Amino acid sequence: MLSSPGGHPLPRFSSSDAPRTPGRTVGELGEFGLIRELTARITPTPAVRIGPGDDAAVVAAPDRRVVASTDLLLEGRHFRRDWSTAYDVGRKAAAQNLADIAAMGAEPTALLLGLVVPAELPATWPTELMDGLHDECRVAGAAVVGGDLVRGDTITVAITALGDLQGREPVTRGGARPGDVVAVTGWLGWSAAGYTVLARGFRSPRAFVEAHRRPEPPYQAGPAAAGLGATAMTDVSDGLVADLGHIAEASKVRIDVRSAALDIPAQMSDIGQAVGVDPLQWVLTGGEDHAIVATFPPGTKLPARWSRIGEVLHPSAAPQVTVDGATWTGASGWDHFGD
Amino acid sequence: MLSSPGGHPLPRFSSSDAPRTPGRTVGELGEFGLIRELTARITPTPAVRIGPGDDAAVVAAPDRRVVASTDLLLEGRHFRRDWSTAYDVGRKAAAQNLADIAAMGAEPTALLLGLVVPAELPATWPTELMDGLHDECRVAGAAVVGGDLVRGDTITVAITALGDLQGREPVTRGGARPGDVVAVTGWLGWSAAGYTVLARGFRSPRAFVEAHRRPEPPYQAGPAAAGLGATAMTDVSDGLVADLGHIAEASKVRIDVRSAALDIPAQMSDIGQAVGVDPLQWVLTGGEDHAIVATFPPGTKLPARWSRIGEVLHPSAAPQVTVDGATWTGASGWDHFGD
Repeated sequence: MLSSPGGHPLPRFSSSDAPRTPGRTVGELGEFGLIRELTARITPTPAVRIGPGDDAAVVAAPDRRVVASTDLLLEGRHFRRDWSTAYDVGRKAAAQNLADIAAMGAEPTALLLGLVVPAELPATWPTELMDGLHDECRVAGAAVVGGDLVRGDTITVAITALGDLQGREPVTRGGARPGDVVAVTGWLGWSAAGYTVLARGFRSPRAFVEAHRRPEPPYQAGPAAAGLGATAMTDVSDGLVADLGHIAEASKVRIDVRSAALDIPAQMSDIGQAVGVDPLQWVLTGGEDHAIVATFPPGTKLPARWSRIGEVLHPSAAPQVTVDGATWTGASGWDHFGD
Repeated sequence: MLSSPGGHPLPRFSSSDAPRTPGRTVGELGEFGLIRELTARITPTPAVRIGPGDDAAVVAAPDRRVVASTDLLLEGRHFRRDWSTAYDVGRKAAAQNLADIAAMGAEPTALLLGLVVPAELPATWPTELMDGLHDECRVAGAAVVGGDLVRGDTITVAITALGDLQGREPVTRGGARPGDVVAVTGWLGWSAAGYTVLARGFRSPRAFVEAHRRPEPPYQAGPAAAGLGATAMTDVSDGLVADLGHIAEASKVRIDVRSAALDIPAQMSDIGQAVGVDPLQWVLTGGEDHAIVATFPPGTKLPARWSRIGEVLHPSAAPQVTVDGATWTGASGWDHFGD
């Protein structure tokens, strides 16, 4: 069917049209035609020594160490084409990987794309995906440097992001110490609230729906926190309680979150009331906004836009996360293979 | 169904058995259980500063540049579970990515895995895949440093490989000059001959079937060729004529291959005769052995195991590859989306 991912009809073309005709499918454009379209959308940064088109890319790694992270997004599981445009999927796929790099305290430098597309997919879908990847890379200071393209039944976006530590030590999940303060920057619960809205068939409030479609990780905050001496750090991808759980486990500590310190905007409360969900649930368990949460030595002067939300305690029976001193009984993260 | 990838029945277990029981499916083991099983199979190298389990891995990049390449393998398209074990798929997936790193003149250092698996897949499949990745990494001097695991319908193996140039300049496809000699090292046509045998329902001759299941790229030859002053280099993944075509196009030259210089073992000729295929076709157009082909300045003393197979000429009408001075009319490479 000749229609853009957004559902807008595209003009029809006869088979005698030029190769770059919009409205063609991935199969009609062919592998090499599509690769040409995709690479034409890439602009390098000074860090890119060799970009797409050779056996491998070459990227500057001035720190003499490279930070690397990989993630997969599948249609139907991580995104829906009727909820998100290809462009938004590109922004989101890049964002979640680049946020992982920032959460180590590194500056993102490069991104590689592995893409599975069905032959009958409109060719505008992968090209708009690439536009999204490219624009999100630009926000983070990185560039798309290479990829692989394969035909298959399920749209699959495999991203690997690279980054440079610029002489800083990487901030792992394992360095939190009792007495440290817990602080967060970025958005919490917005994507989850937007998901709830979309799942009930609504398209507004727009701010939350947009937050679900296109997260805005605070990339600069990661390296900045590392520079301030953050002892542990992660991006919030599984949910605040779950991701703090990863820090608690790796650091062998207990972490207590003060719910009163968590920002719940009035509009989020309104949505919660409308759909019968405690908005605190979104803030504590919603991932995909890719906020950055970190622990800092007591007395650290936190920069603007960081909120102190809790503290690191000595471990009790087992490392754990508590909310206002008690176990949080709501859903916390998920197991992708569970029922 | 409780059976191993090879089809051998496994003992059945009741639901009260311990978590590591063989015979469980991916869904029964759960995401975190499977991740534990996979990471337990990884041994780091000195280059691995931070391995799996954090937001991102950190890998040494002493050259201050990192070489990176990514590839996707899909079940049914790139491998079949009735032809190859999970272990062999792991060896092959790692090999084709690590060969890309070597073909730039770099030493492979690290590998990241994105893995899509159906919940009903026996959990031994991904763990044996990881064993294969690990063992192939060990051959190349690299280590698995991270990954992502997602449930989906089609087994998909997304690999990103990283490497270090150790002060050498990367050898691209674009530096071949008229007068250069063309030389190859590694195996040519073995995987294609093995594929033909398997496709006709046979399981032997074993050497060729094994070559299809588990290529053996000459990793060390890539950095060595770079050290000898190779002007252009690539690994043979699409077929010798197709991959030399990439060099011809990028270097704006013509390349002529002398068919008499190509090694066709007697056993390959026998298979060709048995199945009615000219074995030269396998050698000229079969990819997936991941031989390394390079161009060298005239007079370069080639090391043992490199064969001089042709020469670089001034471009004619268009950059092209010829065999014994004529256009090769057999199949040359393929378009993944073509019909």
